[in-house]
Amino acid sequence: MATFIRPRVPRGMRDILPEQMIRRQYVIDVIRDVFEEFGFEPLQTPALELSEVLTGKYGPDAEKLIYQAGHVGGKEDISLRYDLSVPLCRVVAMHPQLPKPFKRYQIDPVWRAERPQKGRYRQFFQCDADTVGTESMLADAENVNLVYQVLTRLGFEQFEVNINDRKLITGIGQFAGVPTEQLGGLYRSIDKLDKIGISGVKDELAENQIPEPVIEKLLALLQVEGTAATVLSALKEQLGDSKIAREGIAELEELNGYLETFGVPDKFYRFNVSMVRGLEYYTGPIYETVVEEPKIGSITGGGRYDELIGSFSKQGYPATGTSFGIERIIDVMEEFDMFPAAVGKTVTQVLVTVFDADLAQESLKLATLLRQDGIRTEVYSRQTRLSSQIKYADTKGIPYAVILGSDELEAGNVAIRNLASRKQEIVPREELVAHIKRLSS
Amino acid sequence: MATFIRPRVPRGMRDILPEQMIRRQYVIDVIRDVFEEFGFEPLQTPALELSEVLTGKYGPDAEKLIYQAGHVGGKEDISLRYDLSVPLCRVVAMHPQLPKPFKRYQIDPVWRAERPQKGRYRQFFQCDADTVGTESMLADAENVNLVYQVLTRLGFEQFEVNINDRKLITGIGQFAGVPTEQLGGLYRSIDKLDKIGISGVKDELAENQIPEPVIEKLLALLQVEGTAATVLSALKEQLGDSKIAREGIAELEELNGYLETFGVPDKFYRFNVSMVRGLEYYTGPIYETVVEEPKIGSITGGGRYDELIGSFSKQGYPATGTSFGIERIIDVMEEFDMFPAAVGKTVTQVLVTVFDADLAQESLKLATLLRQDGIRTEVYSRQTRLSSQIKYADTKGIPYAVILGSDELEAGNVAIRNLASRKQEIVPREELVAHIKRLSS
Repeated sequence: MATFIRPRVPRGMRDILPEQMIRRQYVIDVIRDVFEEFGFEPLQTPALELSEVLTGKYGPDAEKLIYQAGHVGGKEDISLRYDLSVPLCRVVAMHPQLPKPFKRYQIDPVWRAERPQKGRYRQFFQCDADTVGTESMLADAENVNLVYQVLTRLGFEQFEVNINDRKLITGIGQFAGVPTEQLGGLYRSIDKLDKIGISGVKDELAENQIPEPVIEKLLALLQVEGTAATVLSALKEQLGDSKIAREGIAELEELNGYLETFGVPDKFYRFNVSMVRGLEYYTGPIYETVVEEPKIGSITGGGRYDELIGSFSKQGYPATGTSFGIERIIDVMEEFDMFPAAVGKTVTQVLVTVFDADLAQESLKLATLLRQDGIRTEVYSRQTRLSSQIKYADTKGIPYAVILGSDELEAGNVAIRNLASRKQEIVPREELVAHIKRLSS
Repeated sequence: MATFIRPRVPRGMRDILPEQMIRRQYVIDVIRDVFEEFGFEPLQTPALELSEVLTGKYGPDAEKLIYQAGHVGGKEDISLRYDLSVPLCRVVAMHPQLPKPFKRYQIDPVWRAERPQKGRYRQFFQCDADTVGTESMLADAENVNLVYQVLTRLGFEQFEVNINDRKLITGIGQFAGVPTEQLGGLYRSIDKLDKIGISGVKDELAENQIPEPVIEKLLALLQVEGTAATVLSALKEQLGDSKIAREGIAELEELNGYLETFGVPDKFYRFNVSMVRGLEYYTGPIYETVVEEPKIGSITGGGRYDELIGSFSKQGYPATGTSFGIERIIDVMEEFDMFPAAVGKTVTQVLVTVFDADLAQESLKLATLLRQDGIRTEVYSRQTRLSSQIKYADTKGIPYAVILGSDELEAGNVAIRNLASRKQEIVPREELVAHIKRLSS
């Protein structure tokens, strides 16, 4: 056998053990259900992409985090995917026969070599829904509606989708009169509003040589509060001179109209010009969801990227989508104990114990009966005392143990032990399945 | 925007487009259901492992196929996983608190840089169920029972689980009197029985300096046909002098007894001493499933590996498991048209068309109503003629289109078009949801 190796995972990686995985699976199943209810179809792309496919899409800082891969004799330059949007664009370009609009979802891991920190891992899941081939704000409104539906179905009562528009951000840059190459600094300062407050942003802008009157107008804009209509009309008033800003505002107005029609309550979203998002490829509306507590960053993010497919295909397509970060969603749900009681420590409903070797046969038959009715049943497969088997069921959180001793066998009965109440019932063998079903419902 | 890149995937990789992905999801869901019915719990490990974890486990030929990975500034030697069993062993060693027996399933991709060929990809999914911490053949019998349950539930009527035992194979080696270092050649010759036939195996064994009388005895063994009992008793008669062979035979006898108790029909399995399996780490019973048609290799494989966890932990644990290859399973199901009618080209049930901008609002409200009742509904999000929208639904295979023109709006009705029959019905708006439900059930 191989030499002894200390068991470890790579830095920033982790295992998802069953108890955690059951919660994860619950969240993924809810998201998948809502994606499909919205008419998105499943797609899967390989984890490995040609490196040239990923290069130049995310911005230089992000690109440094991409994992490279290779194998003996391999001649291609390949990488692990960094997100699911760029692979989607490659797919759309490679398969022009796909009907448009092409609405797909993908729930899969991505890899980023970020500095590991609490709650942040180098492999994490993205749950993405995207619509390719339509310029309509209806598709963007569907994205925000999707966020609303998923989060409320998961039990979130307090969250806010922050909505902005890249065109509007560009308009703000023009409005501020900063040269294009300094725009990044302006956006980063604005983006810090939540962290450093109005006065902090003011100081940073001044340091960046933004003229005082422009700073005042910008800050006035950033401080507009109120309904969607109030914010949008203030924006128009302040930024109406910029053509590109007007385009961005018109997009947000249209988006807002659809959200009202879909019945998304306005307490769950707001137009927020200080929200920027990191990735380079966005071109229109952008959105990300924050929760007040715990302080955890955004739990969903997305936006429109009308030019990305054009980097793979002469026939470009407009596209827009949104992504759910299940790791953070799960963190919030655990913090506030939001998982339904049915999402327990185990999926197993019954442990069939094996009293001794002579009685094994009869116990196995019981397991087959239970499984035939869809009852999730483990057969205890070690030879140990009954008390150890019961303890095992208890430790694992399996609710019921079925016991068949020689007394029960002779009388045509089985014993059902409720691990929580420690009570035991004797039922006729032929009533076992119905009885367990009744107990589990 | 980035420079133009021709959209391609790395050699041996592929995208799973929605139509294919829907079938894939169906197969995975069935497998997951059965895994859970058998009391296996979900586990997820990271795709990347420290290379030292994978080294020395699979055999030298296999090891050459492992993908390496890395990132800027990374100091660890990391690889993409090659299977799900070695990561499981690492998990068990890292988390000694997990109750034993530890029964887990994992459904995830693995990567192997094999020579690409028809139907074989460098990323493929394994669906594994394993039991750690029991020496009992009951766990091995559960593995074979699991194969039987999954395949019959997927509609397979003709398949055969070939069962052998590594101890028996070692016994055959001793019996043949070949030196340990030549055993590999003997096993490879025996493994070719299906391809080169009895006379081919005979020639190969003679070339490998196996004495004539031993060859005759071996061939007699390989040609034993009949029930499990017949084969096992013939094995005992021929190989009874070897202690290790007797141990292997005893394991298979016990396994066979459990299979009978579980009610696995004996037409679905056979004891086959010429089945060897490639991976080095097996130590006891091994099993793989073949189908007569199409010629596609094994669709499941597994076995016992009692020494693998010991390479990560001073406290070793016996372990056994089985793996389903969904790519090949899907190939067979497509060849024989085994997918249920409900597994269609799309998961979407209804397309809500948008007649024109003025009527958009009312159409969106219909979509929300349908979705509230769980009906999978797409809203058409491009501004085009109604006829293009209907054509889109038809191309995608969406069964019903909902149409709301001004006539219908005024009368409080909606039109439902059946895309297959091309017939259209007018129903009162408030009956839409119930009507679609009736049509879809």
